[in-house]
Amino acid sequence: MQFTAQQVAAIINGQIEGDPQAKVSRVGKIEEGEEGVLSFIANPKYEDYLYSTKASILIVNEALKVEQPVAPTLIRVKDAYIAFTQLLEKYHQMTGSAGKNGIEEPSYISPTAKVGQNVYIGAFAYVGENARIGDNVKIYPGCYLGDNVVIGNDSVLYAGVKVYNECHLGQRVVIHSGTVVGGDGFGFAPQKDGTYKKVPQIGNVIIENDVEIGANTTIDRATMGSTVIHKGVKLDNLIQIAHNVEIGENTVIAAQTGVSGSTKIGRNCIIGGQVGMVGHIQIADGTRINAQSGLSKSVTAPNTALTGSPAFEYKSSLKSQAIFRNLPELQQRLLKLEETVEELSALLSSQNISVKK
Amino acid sequence: MQFTAQQVAAIINGQIEGDPQAKVSRVGKIEEGEEGVLSFIANPKYEDYLYSTKASILIVNEALKVEQPVAPTLIRVKDAYIAFTQLLEKYHQMTGSAGKNGIEEPSYISPTAKVGQNVYIGAFAYVGENARIGDNVKIYPGCYLGDNVVIGNDSVLYAGVKVYNECHLGQRVVIHSGTVVGGDGFGFAPQKDGTYKKVPQIGNVIIENDVEIGANTTIDRATMGSTVIHKGVKLDNLIQIAHNVEIGENTVIAAQTGVSGSTKIGRNCIIGGQVGMVGHIQIADGTRINAQSGLSKSVTAPNTALTGSPAFEYKSSLKSQAIFRNLPELQQRLLKLEETVEELSALLSSQNISVKK
Amino acid sequence: MQFTAQQVAAIINGQIEGDPQAKVSRVGKIEEGEEGVLSFIANPKYEDYLYSTKASILIVNEALKVEQPVAPTLIRVKDAYIAFTQLLEKYHQMTGSAGKNGIEEPSYISPTAKVGQNVYIGAFAYVGENARIGDNVKIYPGCYLGDNVVIGNDSVLYAGVKVYNECHLGQRVVIHSGTVVGGDGFGFAPQKDGTYKKVPQIGNVIIENDVEIGANTTIDRATMGSTVIHKGVKLDNLIQIAHNVEIGENTVIAAQTGVSGSTKIGRNCIIGGQVGMVGHIQIADGTRINAQSGLSKSVTAPNTALTGSPAFEYKSSLKSQAIFRNLPELQQRLLKLEETVEELSALLSSQNISVKK
Repeated sequence: MQFTAQQVAAIINGQIEGDPQAKVSRVGKIEEGEEGVLSFIANPKYEDYLYSTKASILIVNEALKVEQPVAPTLIRVKDAYIAFTQLLEKYHQMTGSAGKNGIEEPSYISPTAKVGQNVYIGAFAYVGENARIGDNVKIYPGCYLGDNVVIGNDSVLYAGVKVYNECHLGQRVVIHSGTVVGGDGFGFAPQKDGTYKKVPQIGNVIIENDVEIGANTTIDRATMGSTVIHKGVKLDNLIQIAHNVEIGENTVIAAQTGVSGSTKIGRNCIIGGQVGMVGHIQIADGTRINAQSGLSKSVTAPNTALTGSPAFEYKSSLKSQAIFRNLPELQQRLLKLEETVEELSALLSSQNISVKK
Repeated sequence: MQFTAQQVAAIINGQIEGDPQAKVSRVGKIEEGEEGVLSFIANPKYEDYLYSTKASILIVNEALKVEQPVAPTLIRVKDAYIAFTQLLEKYHQMTGSAGKNGIEEPSYISPTAKVGQNVYIGAFAYVGENARIGDNVKIYPGCYLGDNVVIGNDSVLYAGVKVYNECHLGQRVVIHSGTVVGGDGFGFAPQKDGTYKKVPQIGNVIIENDVEIGANTTIDRATMGSTVIHKGVKLDNLIQIAHNVEIGENTVIAAQTGVSGSTKIGRNCIIGGQVGMVGHIQIADGTRINAQSGLSKSVTAPNTALTGSPAFEYKSSLKSQAIFRNLPELQQRLLKLEETVEELSALLSSQNISVKK
Repeated sequence: MQFTAQQVAAIINGQIEGDPQAKVSRVGKIEEGEEGVLSFIANPKYEDYLYSTKASILIVNEALKVEQPVAPTLIRVKDAYIAFTQLLEKYHQMTGSAGKNGIEEPSYISPTAKVGQNVYIGAFAYVGENARIGDNVKIYPGCYLGDNVVIGNDSVLYAGVKVYNECHLGQRVVIHSGTVVGGDGFGFAPQKDGTYKKVPQIGNVIIENDVEIGANTTIDRATMGSTVIHKGVKLDNLIQIAHNVEIGENTVIAAQTGVSGSTKIGRNCIIGGQVGMVGHIQIADGTRINAQSGLSKSVTAPNTALTGSPAFEYKSSLKSQAIFRNLPELQQRLLKLEETVEELSALLSSQNISVKK
């Protein structure tokens, strides 16, 4: 799609300086500006780019002073950053999922399923028995919704998401490709002969409103009851959430982290990538956990920061890490001391002042 | 589905106390009991819930003494826990995969494929040339079986499992959504110009009977020969098994663990989550490896427990970890000693008793 | 497929010793030789197998001396290893993807998509609006290509690969099952009320020529601009590449590694499995990073080797790790020194030579 400066200015209510017919087909950073790119300058430290960028249109603050001739067409607005993000959202809506609509064939929709208004169901999507799909939902190609699955209004499931039977998703939930919701929890009872017997996993997964989940993440169904992802949680890619886990409102977890069974994570936590947590622990509200940490115990005090594997309090963990780097020197100092003390002892002994060992 | 106390009692051969028409539609933990929930009390420490739970039906031991009036209908059996798990399995069979049957359209079954009796093949499933599918197998929607794939009797592949050509699965194998069996091993030969040349991966994957594999796990085909997952192995979600790896009978591996090429893991091992193993090592039978450990060497003694990255023997590793936490204090003590020894030396020197440095 | 020694010899231009009608149907390692197996001996240390192997045909060097009668048919060539890998490639071409051709039904190809010559598009594959697919491309069953996706000539996408709209793949790119290219970057702006607001991710992913990517890996689209995987890069399974990351030519990354947003990795790096990198750092060309390392800072000197979490220079990191194992002993030595020094001080003090503390 192509836009003229005039069209862009109309959307963000800006004043044009330069050619109103200047055309852009992409947005980009000011430092990567090329012909056909729309960019912006909000931060004074990028103002030098004004005279060198090859971007075709720039959104700038009303107050910006131009001291030399500039090549791009400028569009002046009150706050260039806010105007730009508005444009991003608009652009996203046009190029992204918002346009998709209707039911593509072939798809498989069980006759007992209920499908809302204004829905997109892509080709090769599968909707099981008694599934209920809300209004304005988008189910991309190749998704699988098992029997009795519920998807709330305005949710988006990208291509190839799998939701096992009985799982419930709220409204405005976004799930990226390849994510699996509701696979069996990893529950096996050891038998006397060394084999394992499967513990049936008959619970489900509940994902509340406004949750977004990345690609190829796995969220297991509960043994009994529900694995619960509360309102506003954001999960990145390749995360493992085990059975009966509960994640509190607005908690954010980065990629490749794993949470073991029955662990409860509080609200507003920020958890880095590749973190591991053992099962059956509680993580207090507002906990911040550094990437690659390993938690083997509950965190009881809210707003604690932790790092390390095993993890402990952030600052003292950093101190230990710093000394760890210097262990060879520390060992050397210890060795030297031992020698010195040995000599001292020998010396005193030679003076008939002896130390028992 | 709804069941009455009478129906439940008939299945588990129990005695009803209370309303035989009490109805339940779900099972749940005693502490989360609500109307319509069937629960159980097997452990005396949960007996207090007897008088407060809102569950509609409780399975209890014959021997349980009731000292106050109770609201739920009780069903008395010899062993409440065993009876309850029997019910779980029954329930699972009814709500789970057991009911699925027949071939949904559209699906793609190569005319040269052989499909057994009483099979479920979901819509959008793909069965390649000369593939052989045993009796009672369930292939959920969107699965892919390449050419010459073999699936033994009673196996279940949930939605979106991919099995590359030539791979063989045994009987009663269960694989969860998104798992990939038989992708190419990661083999590239470095060339003089800095590029890499692909080493063809022409082996396969063999998965023996009674193996269960979680969601989004990847098991690569062998360069030559087979990557082998032996009988009774249980793998969790998001695990990486590289080419030519062999995993011994009844070994259990938790989520996000990675095993590098040609490593052989023994039988009855228990391996935590996010563990990493380098290639070409042997892990003895019965080895237990703690979560997030990193193994760079073979484990030769059976039944060893290890932890850490790099991993070593469990108990001494825990000791090192404990001292690691106290490194700042340790460093402080060393510094103090240095000062004291310095003073001692100076003192002796001032007494004309001198130490050479 | 079965081949006779005569047919094999014709392909690799070798001399037959033994039965030219000996038949093989598989290739394998010499130590696992069975009837029907074709193997080779290139390395003198395997020559003993010559007299014991049950393989039916062996490829050997011209120069090999045979001192006893051998059972297998031999095929002599100049370089047995090179001849064998040539055969592997030939075999791979025959059994692998090379044979697939044409468009299987049902598949979904948007009328506005452009599809090249000699293409394979498997059943249940989805090709979005204005997508462009080059010549000789193979799209296996269940793949998803969003709108405006570009796939260069001779590329192979195995079953169930998902490529979001606007992403571009070069020529001879190979992607294994379940990998997701172009999911949204993990960008959320914290709001005052504790919730997060999605930052639109309107960039794309560019994958250059000759890149191979394993199974269930995730590569996120850029916020703006492109996430770029340069020419010749090889990525293993279950890797996370965040938005705006750039990976330099011929860099190799093992399974389960995660790279956070905007990090730039140089050329010809070798990165182990389960490595984590924070965002916004630079990794110099030729950097080697050990498995399970965690990088929190840029690496500026080319060809550095690192290990540990947090990672530092390889050799000194190994020293610290070695001392870490001996921390209990180190602590013991420190304690002993403290006692000795205490005694020395007491002794001197008893001699009226006193140390101030």
